[in-house]
Amino acid sequence: MAVRLHTNRYGKAETRLVRLVRDTPRHEIIDLNVSVALSGDLDEVHLSGDNANVLPTDTQKNTVYAFARDGIDGVEPFGLRLARHFVDSFAPIRRATVTIEEYRWQRLGDHSFQRPVGGEVRTASVDYDGSVATVGAGLKDLLLLNSTDSEFSGYIKDEFTTLPEATDRILATAVAAGWTYATSEMDFAKAYDAARAALIAGFTGTYSLSLQQTLYAMGAKVIEAVDEVDEVSLELPNKHHFLYDIERFGRDNPGLVFNAADRPYGLIEGTVRRA
Amino acid sequence: MAVRLHTNRYGKAETRLVRLVRDTPRHEIIDLNVSVALSGDLDEVHLSGDNANVLPTDTQKNTVYAFARDGIDGVEPFGLRLARHFVDSFAPIRRATVTIEEYRWQRLGDHSFQRPVGGEVRTASVDYDGSVATVGAGLKDLLLLNSTDSEFSGYIKDEFTTLPEATDRILATAVAAGWTYATSEMDFAKAYDAARAALIAGFTGTYSLSLQQTLYAMGAKVIEAVDEVDEVSLELPNKHHFLYDIERFGRDNPGLVFNAADRPYGLIEGTVRRA
Amino acid sequence: MAVRLHTNRYGKAETRLVRLVRDTPRHEIIDLNVSVALSGDLDEVHLSGDNANVLPTDTQKNTVYAFARDGIDGVEPFGLRLARHFVDSFAPIRRATVTIEEYRWQRLGDHSFQRPVGGEVRTASVDYDGSVATVGAGLKDLLLLNSTDSEFSGYIKDEFTTLPEATDRILATAVAAGWTYATSEMDFAKAYDAARAALIAGFTGTYSLSLQQTLYAMGAKVIEAVDEVDEVSLELPNKHHFLYDIERFGRDNPGLVFNAADRPYGLIEGTVRRA
Amino acid sequence: MAVRLHTNRYGKAETRLVRLVRDTPRHEIIDLNVSVALSGDLDEVHLSGDNANVLPTDTQKNTVYAFARDGIDGVEPFGLRLARHFVDSFAPIRRATVTIEEYRWQRLGDHSFQRPVGGEVRTASVDYDGSVATVGAGLKDLLLLNSTDSEFSGYIKDEFTTLPEATDRILATAVAAGWTYATSEMDFAKAYDAARAALIAGFTGTYSLSLQQTLYAMGAKVIEAVDEVDEVSLELPNKHHFLYDIERFGRDNPGLVFNAADRPYGLIEGTVRRA
Repeated sequence: MAVRLHTNRYGKAETRLVRLVRDTPRHEIIDLNVSVALSGDLDEVHLSGDNANVLPTDTQKNTVYAFARDGIDGVEPFGLRLARHFVDSFAPIRRATVTIEEYRWQRLGDHSFQRPVGGEVRTASVDYDGSVATVGAGLKDLLLLNSTDSEFSGYIKDEFTTLPEATDRILATAVAAGWTYATSEMDFAKAYDAARAALIAGFTGTYSLSLQQTLYAMGAKVIEAVDEVDEVSLELPNKHHFLYDIERFGRDNPGLVFNAADRPYGLIEGTVRRA
Repeated sequence: MAVRLHTNRYGKAETRLVRLVRDTPRHEIIDLNVSVALSGDLDEVHLSGDNANVLPTDTQKNTVYAFARDGIDGVEPFGLRLARHFVDSFAPIRRATVTIEEYRWQRLGDHSFQRPVGGEVRTASVDYDGSVATVGAGLKDLLLLNSTDSEFSGYIKDEFTTLPEATDRILATAVAAGWTYATSEMDFAKAYDAARAALIAGFTGTYSLSLQQTLYAMGAKVIEAVDEVDEVSLELPNKHHFLYDIERFGRDNPGLVFNAADRPYGLIEGTVRRA
Repeated sequence: MAVRLHTNRYGKAETRLVRLVRDTPRHEIIDLNVSVALSGDLDEVHLSGDNANVLPTDTQKNTVYAFARDGIDGVEPFGLRLARHFVDSFAPIRRATVTIEEYRWQRLGDHSFQRPVGGEVRTASVDYDGSVATVGAGLKDLLLLNSTDSEFSGYIKDEFTTLPEATDRILATAVAAGWTYATSEMDFAKAYDAARAALIAGFTGTYSLSLQQTLYAMGAKVIEAVDEVDEVSLELPNKHHFLYDIERFGRDNPGLVFNAADRPYGLIEGTVRRA
Repeated sequence: MAVRLHTNRYGKAETRLVRLVRDTPRHEIIDLNVSVALSGDLDEVHLSGDNANVLPTDTQKNTVYAFARDGIDGVEPFGLRLARHFVDSFAPIRRATVTIEEYRWQRLGDHSFQRPVGGEVRTASVDYDGSVATVGAGLKDLLLLNSTDSEFSGYIKDEFTTLPEATDRILATAVAAGWTYATSEMDFAKAYDAARAALIAGFTGTYSLSLQQTLYAMGAKVIEAVDEVDEVSLELPNKHHFLYDIERFGRDNPGLVFNAADRPYGLIEGTVRRA
């Protein structure tokens, strides 16, 4: 019976790197989680265990720390430096994907900082095949809530329908969004800030008849705001806040008391493109 | 400026369903986490908030519980029933994907059971477009360890290399594997058991020169064991166990004392196909 | 053989309550996780399963939602209302402990809000025995980092010592702190804000020779800042940032490139009291 | 204003240690998470940052790995060795508490093992003050479920009661239990196995009118089974399985279809003592 190797890649995931900038007494902090994935001429390591073409994941980790010494002028440029290094330095490595999570700290003083544990994360990805570098960016765990201006009605009813139509509900989600830039020579920081602001504006500024409608508005806002973005993908869990039935206890509930539910949750996924 | 909607889908994620079978005093328990994703004629809900074509995710949840009443003769057939229902019952819904996690309980008595919190999970997915149903299966969080018969050497060395070559190391991973069946009319339970056994045999039975070699062996074993499987994808984090340097303290360490590390970790991904 | 019941309590944990205030178009949001624990004349439920004295945890949950309708003017007063209700309404219930986590949202607009997923949490606890109510408060997951002004040296050396002394290191922790108020009639919100500011000032303003020294400074600052607090307990994990050895790669590392480690971590615990 | 230091301790938490036994081709694996907490003459480190009496947590970690070289004949004896070392070796250290989590692997072959990710954990704690060593043991995350033989009725009703009485329900919990041994010279492994079996027997063998009744039965069984145990503390979350209302859809539900809920949950805590 014949079997063959199809697509494959390998690398070091979740290298936790903190880089300080101490050129002046007012320090800066860059806090990253870097993952590398490499592919190329790697059939033999799978078929016979011949590691001659393998750059160990441990070495990839060391490289991340060593490259950080030269300074990190943004997650996308840092990813580009790393991806190009791996492909350009080792002939068997034909493609490198570097994905980075950035945890942003809030300044408390010249050398003091605060960060929400587990809060909003900025993301970036660089894919380089030896000739073309593709840069993506995004964010996740951006938790947003509108306390009104959200309805849901007019949907399909069948024998399993029990949901009452809502003319005024809480709409809440944890935004995960990603987009790709048309070029690798641009002001990534400015584009990120514009895209993030557009996502928030799309959420808060939409009178929403469904979370799908909000998703589309958010994606469209990003494309309007950033010239280098032609496509945005969004994953929006519907973090349900159910009006709690306290009328059973002789109390009205005009949109005041809610149960914030964990599971199950609606999940809306969509991609919006420049036409 | 023109923007348009590209791919999209929506559904209810993580409906937690427990179904008992109580036909005899010796009960059975089926414990599932069911997620539904639907797509179809859903442009208007995104563009104008018109929900006329939307089957609410709340209704999807109710459907999962209602269908469970008829009995669950395996995760794949249950997924098939659900996927077909959503597409065949509602004209605007053109495609349904049902993914299921199964948590398996160990019997302690006629009506008593034990389950590892957070342990190994069986997975299934059904994708149905109105004519063809594609059934996939897999598992995740299957934690395996070999305490010997693993080496790693002969790899690329560069200026950032510090990893010593290893002639006898611990090899450990948390297997995530997925495969697709060539048909939707088959004995899914038997195939799953055979595939799972093949994965374990591939791991434990391979004298490993690299985790990539083990990955390939595991995938090949599945293809050999199950006729209906032509392709297996694996994600194997290398759960590093580093020999701890206690020679500094006057103690030798011939493969005895290890630090089990969290992050970073190697991550090996690959797909193996029937040739 | 004789066995007897010793201390015991029961209740509903983690009721997730969101309360909106919509008196004006500028809404407010209060987002809580409420846990109740009751004790009293409950021997029979343990010994014979006689539930006559048991107020079901489901009813406790309903009570939390019903009481929220009247408004929540702070976590401590809400906890006091609940605790007094359970003890004063049901003779067998002799003691109630209500603990609350509050997740604070940042305003984005009149009815739009943002919250860090998993970020800093405000805590409160109320213990009421039918006559005396004791109110505690605190916070957790407040992540702080100083990029300098931290040393660690002069410690015990033995045969297992390998840690180099540090004259300039990163000091980072996730603060968990709790304190008890001397009265239940006071401005809890003002006290909380003052205590929180004192904790941050204690961390950022201390030139630290050890995390223990910082802990003591933080606790002392709280006692100085809030008259009603006589005792503060702190748990400070030392979130190690290890200078990464890149000298092996021909690069110096004057406090610039760090590995942010997960486990193990130092854990410093201490209580500071008004003398 | 005067402030003083009250109780305090410090140490290294969560040292992840794997120890192999390779005396024969049939290997054994011991997988531990070791936490150390020390207290003693440590006022000055808090008050002035004088570290002269501080054994660094890094050294504690090294000690754990070094001591593992000599072999680990059970978690309690290993904890005793460590605790005695820290107190007996360093005059300023007056008390040591060593807590250990053990993750047990299932054998697949002579040198191959499987372990549930995140599953049941065995725990041990040793407290030593220079003269007396107190040994405790326990477990957590032992998930148990009875599919019948559980009722809940006869409880207090008030205006907030909506829970229907149940004459046949699922009872499920994740057992966390701890107990203290009367001596530090005994067969800890045998006692642990007996206590664990007693907990399971107490759960599965009790026709339960309330989870409190089951808790008491479980604790009593442990005391009956192990002579060296005089007190057992249990924390039992009531992992609610709610009968799903499918009668709305024309289907009966005689104890067959359940929603497995996450939050909120009942939490029953109690201590049972030898009389």
